[in-house]
Amino acid sequence: MISVGIVGGTGYTGSELLRLLVRHPCIALRAVTSRAEAGTAIAEHYTALRGLTDLSFSAPEAARLAECDLVFFATPNGTAMQEASQLLDSGVRVIDLAADFRLKDVELWQRWYGQTHAAPALVDEAVYGLPELNRRAIAGARLVANPGCYPTAVTLGLLPLLEAGVVDANRVIADVKSGVSGAGRKASTALLMAECGESFKAYSVSGHRHQPEIQENLKRALGMDVGLTFVPHLLPMVRGIEATLYATRLQPDHELAETDLTALYQKRYQDEPFVDVLPSATSVETRSVRGTNLCRVAVTEPQGAGVVVVQSVIDNLVKGAAGQAVQNMNIMFGWEETTGLALSALAP
Amino acid sequence: MISVGIVGGTGYTGSELLRLLVRHPCIALRAVTSRAEAGTAIAEHYTALRGLTDLSFSAPEAARLAECDLVFFATPNGTAMQEASQLLDSGVRVIDLAADFRLKDVELWQRWYGQTHAAPALVDEAVYGLPELNRRAIAGARLVANPGCYPTAVTLGLLPLLEAGVVDANRVIADVKSGVSGAGRKASTALLMAECGESFKAYSVSGHRHQPEIQENLKRALGMDVGLTFVPHLLPMVRGIEATLYATRLQPDHELAETDLTALYQKRYQDEPFVDVLPSATSVETRSVRGTNLCRVAVTEPQGAGVVVVQSVIDNLVKGAAGQAVQNMNIMFGWEETTGLALSALAP
Amino acid sequence: MISVGIVGGTGYTGSELLRLLVRHPCIALRAVTSRAEAGTAIAEHYTALRGLTDLSFSAPEAARLAECDLVFFATPNGTAMQEASQLLDSGVRVIDLAADFRLKDVELWQRWYGQTHAAPALVDEAVYGLPELNRRAIAGARLVANPGCYPTAVTLGLLPLLEAGVVDANRVIADVKSGVSGAGRKASTALLMAECGESFKAYSVSGHRHQPEIQENLKRALGMDVGLTFVPHLLPMVRGIEATLYATRLQPDHELAETDLTALYQKRYQDEPFVDVLPSATSVETRSVRGTNLCRVAVTEPQGAGVVVVQSVIDNLVKGAAGQAVQNMNIMFGWEETTGLALSALAP
Amino acid sequence: MISVGIVGGTGYTGSELLRLLVRHPCIALRAVTSRAEAGTAIAEHYTALRGLTDLSFSAPEAARLAECDLVFFATPNGTAMQEASQLLDSGVRVIDLAADFRLKDVELWQRWYGQTHAAPALVDEAVYGLPELNRRAIAGARLVANPGCYPTAVTLGLLPLLEAGVVDANRVIADVKSGVSGAGRKASTALLMAECGESFKAYSVSGHRHQPEIQENLKRALGMDVGLTFVPHLLPMVRGIEATLYATRLQPDHELAETDLTALYQKRYQDEPFVDVLPSATSVETRSVRGTNLCRVAVTEPQGAGVVVVQSVIDNLVKGAAGQAVQNMNIMFGWEETTGLALSALAP
Repeated sequence: MISVGIVGGTGYTGSELLRLLVRHPCIALRAVTSRAEAGTAIAEHYTALRGLTDLSFSAPEAARLAECDLVFFATPNGTAMQEASQLLDSGVRVIDLAADFRLKDVELWQRWYGQTHAAPALVDEAVYGLPELNRRAIAGARLVANPGCYPTAVTLGLLPLLEAGVVDANRVIADVKSGVSGAGRKASTALLMAECGESFKAYSVSGHRHQPEIQENLKRALGMDVGLTFVPHLLPMVRGIEATLYATRLQPDHELAETDLTALYQKRYQDEPFVDVLPSATSVETRSVRGTNLCRVAVTEPQGAGVVVVQSVIDNLVKGAAGQAVQNMNIMFGWEETTGLALSALAP
Repeated sequence: MISVGIVGGTGYTGSELLRLLVRHPCIALRAVTSRAEAGTAIAEHYTALRGLTDLSFSAPEAARLAECDLVFFATPNGTAMQEASQLLDSGVRVIDLAADFRLKDVELWQRWYGQTHAAPALVDEAVYGLPELNRRAIAGARLVANPGCYPTAVTLGLLPLLEAGVVDANRVIADVKSGVSGAGRKASTALLMAECGESFKAYSVSGHRHQPEIQENLKRALGMDVGLTFVPHLLPMVRGIEATLYATRLQPDHELAETDLTALYQKRYQDEPFVDVLPSATSVETRSVRGTNLCRVAVTEPQGAGVVVVQSVIDNLVKGAAGQAVQNMNIMFGWEETTGLALSALAP
Repeated sequence: MISVGIVGGTGYTGSELLRLLVRHPCIALRAVTSRAEAGTAIAEHYTALRGLTDLSFSAPEAARLAECDLVFFATPNGTAMQEASQLLDSGVRVIDLAADFRLKDVELWQRWYGQTHAAPALVDEAVYGLPELNRRAIAGARLVANPGCYPTAVTLGLLPLLEAGVVDANRVIADVKSGVSGAGRKASTALLMAECGESFKAYSVSGHRHQPEIQENLKRALGMDVGLTFVPHLLPMVRGIEATLYATRLQPDHELAETDLTALYQKRYQDEPFVDVLPSATSVETRSVRGTNLCRVAVTEPQGAGVVVVQSVIDNLVKGAAGQAVQNMNIMFGWEETTGLALSALAP
Repeated sequence: MISVGIVGGTGYTGSELLRLLVRHPCIALRAVTSRAEAGTAIAEHYTALRGLTDLSFSAPEAARLAECDLVFFATPNGTAMQEASQLLDSGVRVIDLAADFRLKDVELWQRWYGQTHAAPALVDEAVYGLPELNRRAIAGARLVANPGCYPTAVTLGLLPLLEAGVVDANRVIADVKSGVSGAGRKASTALLMAECGESFKAYSVSGHRHQPEIQENLKRALGMDVGLTFVPHLLPMVRGIEATLYATRLQPDHELAETDLTALYQKRYQDEPFVDVLPSATSVETRSVRGTNLCRVAVTEPQGAGVVVVQSVIDNLVKGAAGQAVQNMNIMFGWEETTGLALSALAP
């Protein structure tokens, strides 16, 4: 049993983390901080947690967090970089669910996030917490940068193709769609149900922060630049991300059949507990992973047009955020990777 | 005033056609047929039409339809090709909202639609009813093939780029998303709200009938083959199509700036009453055209990556079906093209 | 042609008013004010209005509004009562879409709205703008208090029963449900799609401002106290209100058959252009009035249990707000009551 | 470990039962039958169950089911009554999730369900499986009639009030709302997303089968007739039921304060693992129980009007169907009642 703290427990990643951690057999929740809700019982704030925890939110307090073995930051971008250093110095391990440590290139980070990085010295040490890419490094990490939701779906969808070198890495297209919970729990007219319901749109067409995250981490992993056009869209639903990925086959003579592509994915992910490869041309529904830590993928090459189409779905709050953070914790502390993550999808 | 008939008035294209026609100043509805609902008052079937029409559905009856000036087929694929010939012989003009006359290549049609074409002799005569492409031919047509919903959104989104030759026509990607009304009003478990609600998926990833329709009509219009990867998706909402289109710039040195691309679109569509070009990088929402005959488009070139991104939205039941049919009727009978189509979008 | 101003044009009632007024044949829009958006083109703020108006939002300016024949307030509660007096003195007629003048009992108003009333002297003069109740008074009014959305649906649902004295007025139950647009366009976490989507709840169970509005206006109209239990609920959708109303029959011996109840409603509303009485026991869908100024009602007496059940549906933004305001304008200026309100429901 | 069979595994109650049973520690799934899908892998039919079961659907086969310790019927109404007798004779215990054994009055059943009852002799033996009412009888039952979804929400909402005799049992109103999954997985145009999405309506206003179920079981439990007006409504969402219940206080002098009413509920349900009483006047959201076997209730007496308002929410597929069936199984086999039901709500 380890002692765990959560900084910033009132957003959606925070509440999802709580949903998972209250049933996790190896941890004890020591503190869940919230400036705004300090003193309020967690179960009063989240009716869904009634009966599952007696904790109340507490004001952020360094001393108390310093006594934890692990602290999750479920805060807006820019908080963890302020506070992680002191915790690490106290011997606390840290998983940041925000973006503070996702990019190694501090300049690039500052440009996309519009603020000065407060802890550039920690950036290099931080491990990008995508277990399917960095499992070993995560195990030994003091500081884990939990990946963004889109980058998780896109990276897992592209990895086998890029590693095998069967597609043109210079021109990959990611048409991604997310439920509204991906935007977090913040008062914003743009996220009102009266704005988002029964409508659909692309957004950030000129550029989105998750694009450099995908590109930088793929480059570190694969040693190659990936030319990526990335267009996010907002779905009129709450949970779920679907990424449809398009890449040009390098072997237009089809030495590798469509079924071979699926085999490639199956081989790449055969030992992964949270990646499930479906038959080619299957329709992969977001609801098939709702509430779970799974990424489901299918790879297809429609009508021999020389373009490979990958579908990749995750629950943005689980594999795209809190579930992946728990998976990283399991790895960091040497537990069975699926501990606390035996979740069945809620469908319908 | 002309006399108009509708064959098959109980589906969504039929009901939308009725919504538009009951307020159209130049037509009188003479017959709306439905085998299943013959004798039922239309306003009983569609509560939304109470007070707007006294007509009842009638059994299909050739004689009565033959007295019309114009007959719309809002039937499943395969019906119009059986019945159009006789009507045309009686001097009735025909607009088919189904797919029977959308492809000139009868072999191709038979392969995709899985049936023998009953009126191949009429195929050549039929005019593909996309006014922005074929206005003059539509004006003189006896038989108009009303375009599919996806092809309308995709073709209008691509036309200016392809006509100007600024993108590589060999590799165009259309990632398209539709509300569920696009699938029609048929009892099907796959279209239940419990199946489609709060979920999202691609479908027909291996191939969809609208792909050859887009390709064949672009080829006829532009004289070039377009290499198109087309992946449809099902949105958890009722109305609206969004197409995000990706094409590679042929001038990677950016002789043509992003603003020039928008200018290109504005010029192409300056006289079009139903195409609205938005500023580059705008988020184009489907609700901005809900209930209207408009197509709204925006063209962007994100971060100079050499890929042009076009957003195109329509209401699948209006510009994607019934509204376009009314627009075609207006052209065929020499009326102001916007007659009966002065519709404001319902947003929110 | 009269000259019209709108104060506060950026919320949902404001945008809906614009949707209706840009096509109204008898008015010219002179000013649409918004402190926040002054200078912005209306069509830029509301993509749905592109091509329909060239106006920009202007800063609130008394002089300009004073030149109008009619000013609509589509502002939060508490604004119209500050500004109406000066406009009325300038000879401008006023329709307030907020709640400032809906209650005659100023004490009661102040208790429910938590502020001091700034214009108690105008309260008596204001006419409650429910045409089906107060048509004559509206025609001559300088100041009209446009009813709340719930009160419109509930009052129209109850009127025939209460006027005829066939139910016990001491115990009426109104179980009402509204789409989220009813709560307005304000940044609030409670109204986020991630909070409201795929969920349903009652709210304000202890009491809601619309309850005294219904009771006071029924008392004025009918001269009797109505004992009303009113429980509002939030629907996971954008537009539409459904009220299910329960009242006990005073004649348990069924002198008046169920069909007679429907006849009672038909008679009461036979000359009303915007109330449509459906057959008993029909399912009355909110979508059957979406986008229109209609109220559709059905009255049923299930299984002789002595309880009358009324279903009443409206579009909260049209008959529940902007459409009713236009109807009131039409009455005030002596135009055909349906002018500018020939709207067909968008279904599906 | 017991051996369990499911007859009719392809509907929503069947799939939900599978979701729960594949993780239940005390059972082994022996057979899941489906005439239509015999031979298909369950995980192929339900992508959500990939990796959780290797079973395939099998054709209904009496011999194989007869070897089970327990058989669930997740079939349409009318199937269990044909097959239960033979299974019971073989010593198999049976839980019917359909309506075949929910009413003791066979005449009444036949009238509402429009068919002749095939096993009237079993009707008396069947135990109505609402644990909060019949726990002891369930423990010893061979045949359990799992309650309907609405009756579960309504009965749990009313029980404390009726048992304590604080409200007038002659006139209780249940305004109930359900997500579309409550209607089952059957091809029906009325349940299409294009019909149900973004709309709301009452249905079966003249009478619904769940009304006699509630009345009969309350009468058996309490020895009193309950005069119930019951109006169901269809919500534009997938999962969840909310019942708002209205009853007149018998003590108009308020001997019992509102807080006492909540205390009454807390006392009644203090030992119930699956009923959670919330503070008076709380908004009780359906999402707070999504995916769980909980019923959450709150009781309020708004503004001393003499009417008690109860909110009761359940997940129609869990506490309203499959979860309650598992709870009943746990009771029948003497296991901890919460076994396999430690589910956290998915919110948002």
